[in-house]
Amino acid sequence: MSQKIVAGIDIGGTKIAVALENQAGGRVADRRFPTDVARGPEKIVDEILRAIEEMLAETGAALGAVGIGCPGPIDIERGLVLSPTNLPGWIDFPLVELVEKRFGVPVVLDNDANAAALGEYFFGAGRGFRDLFYVTISTGIGGAIVCEGRIHHGVQAGAGEVGHTIVDPHGTACRCGARGCLETIASGTGIARRMRERLAAQNGGNVENYRRITAETVVEAVRSDNATARAVWDETIEFLAIGLGNAITIVAPQAVVIGGGVAAAGELLLGPLREAIGKNVTMLPIEKVEILKATLGSESGVCGALILGKSALERGQNVR
Amino acid sequence: MSQKIVAGIDIGGTKIAVALENQAGGRVADRRFPTDVARGPEKIVDEILRAIEEMLAETGAALGAVGIGCPGPIDIERGLVLSPTNLPGWIDFPLVELVEKRFGVPVVLDNDANAAALGEYFFGAGRGFRDLFYVTISTGIGGAIVCEGRIHHGVQAGAGEVGHTIVDPHGTACRCGARGCLETIASGTGIARRMRERLAAQNGGNVENYRRITAETVVEAVRSDNATARAVWDETIEFLAIGLGNAITIVAPQAVVIGGGVAAAGELLLGPLREAIGKNVTMLPIEKVEILKATLGSESGVCGALILGKSALERGQNVR
Repeated sequence: MSQKIVAGIDIGGTKIAVALENQAGGRVADRRFPTDVARGPEKIVDEILRAIEEMLAETGAALGAVGIGCPGPIDIERGLVLSPTNLPGWIDFPLVELVEKRFGVPVVLDNDANAAALGEYFFGAGRGFRDLFYVTISTGIGGAIVCEGRIHHGVQAGAGEVGHTIVDPHGTACRCGARGCLETIASGTGIARRMRERLAAQNGGNVENYRRITAETVVEAVRSDNATARAVWDETIEFLAIGLGNAITIVAPQAVVIGGGVAAAGELLLGPLREAIGKNVTMLPIEKVEILKATLGSESGVCGALILGKSALERGQNVR
Repeated sequence: MSQKIVAGIDIGGTKIAVALENQAGGRVADRRFPTDVARGPEKIVDEILRAIEEMLAETGAALGAVGIGCPGPIDIERGLVLSPTNLPGWIDFPLVELVEKRFGVPVVLDNDANAAALGEYFFGAGRGFRDLFYVTISTGIGGAIVCEGRIHHGVQAGAGEVGHTIVDPHGTACRCGARGCLETIASGTGIARRMRERLAAQNGGNVENYRRITAETVVEAVRSDNATARAVWDETIEFLAIGLGNAITIVAPQAVVIGGGVAAAGELLLGPLREAIGKNVTMLPIEKVEILKATLGSESGVCGALILGKSALERGQNVR
């Protein structure tokens, strides 16, 4: 059998990454470009597929399979992108069928958090662990479970969604329809909102006056020892420790890997978080659960997409 | 290979069940007797093993393997019972080694909730589902995850412990050391405590005056439309829906099976619980998750122990 190339596609709301890899795991080529969401799914996908064709032409090798990570909700079995918040216009979009028709090779689709989790499991902070709980804290909070090298999907690929576990029964209404979800408090959006609300309450002003505050500016203010930011940060840690602590008590993974923009806070986040989780998790020896920062950054998604592609190639068939 | 018998042992804080099964899955013999905890682990185990020897002598068949379910914490790998609350004196007790030496066959130990979950998965309410989340609500709240016919153990067999997920950050201190665990609110003990506290507060009396109240009497009072009991029950449902809802959001199992004494309330529990969980779980179509009462009752543990024994027999070796 001749050497086959695998393509990985990581579709995000703001940027797209594409990479080619040979079967030995060597990166042959890659490209990144912004997601021009206004162009709609057909044109965006055409741009992605042309990029792959160009890269293939340069290498002269044959494509064997494609793996794709994409914001959810998706329908893995039917290969559809249902209607992600940050991909407007992608409604029940038959992504897998489109790519299959263009290339005539097996195509595997999974959601972006699952793809990133696979990337971290095989090439990042999760290497060497049997089981992994992955969480990404950025605009929202996503999550995924990897068990012995495989994503645990669960019913309609819904598993791992720690951002929508309820950590404060009397908390804020969440965009998902429930109340007090971890995401309302500890996502980048939640952190910025709570900081704005506190400042407005303290200064008697309007929340709108503080609209330029982001999770990043809160983290900067914590580093400058701003008391209000510190209170917001402590609350962030407190509820992340409940949500992630509960996930650990349920799944008992060997490692928790935290990615996403908020994880860029590094030890400012991880140090106190480990301590708080240690108080909340009592059913297993918490020192046996490593709580780590993701190491692949924006590469985790495309790395995971390549792993999805390789799994399709190994099975030698369309695995939908 | 001649027909081999498998023995299952279900050790509880108040009673013990032992059963023999042939490889075709036919029940050959069984026995039940009370756990006289005052006698200590050696004598209790000797009584169990003598019962197995007597039953084997009656059948004339050879023993092939033994499976044991026992209250945790246990050390599965080393085959030790560490120090369960309801088995006083069982401290780092080498249960597996003792049974292996007596019978010279492979022995598998797991905790009681895991054994009961296997029983329900293969023979009870969980039949036909790929994945199962099992929860037992009695004095405490235990839990277990079965994925494709196997227990998901996780780090130090700690997975599935939904009773010690935090559902009320400002709640009552739990015996586990954390605060606001589901068990403090929704276990039989928690239900009775909250009823006593409400009655004492209403009537100006002492909580001790109501010490005869149990979860069972609360359920009876709900059926008689007692307003205080109704308030306690509504709160029970509210927090069970958060804890079990969070477990569903993390694991996305095809079914949740609820066993234990409190589950005997039946539809009084399950009806409102399904409705409340439906509001809390937003990341997957909740109608695809069946929420069911366990059907094996006190048989689930010994059924699961037999499955553990069969797994040891099939692997043909000591699987510790």
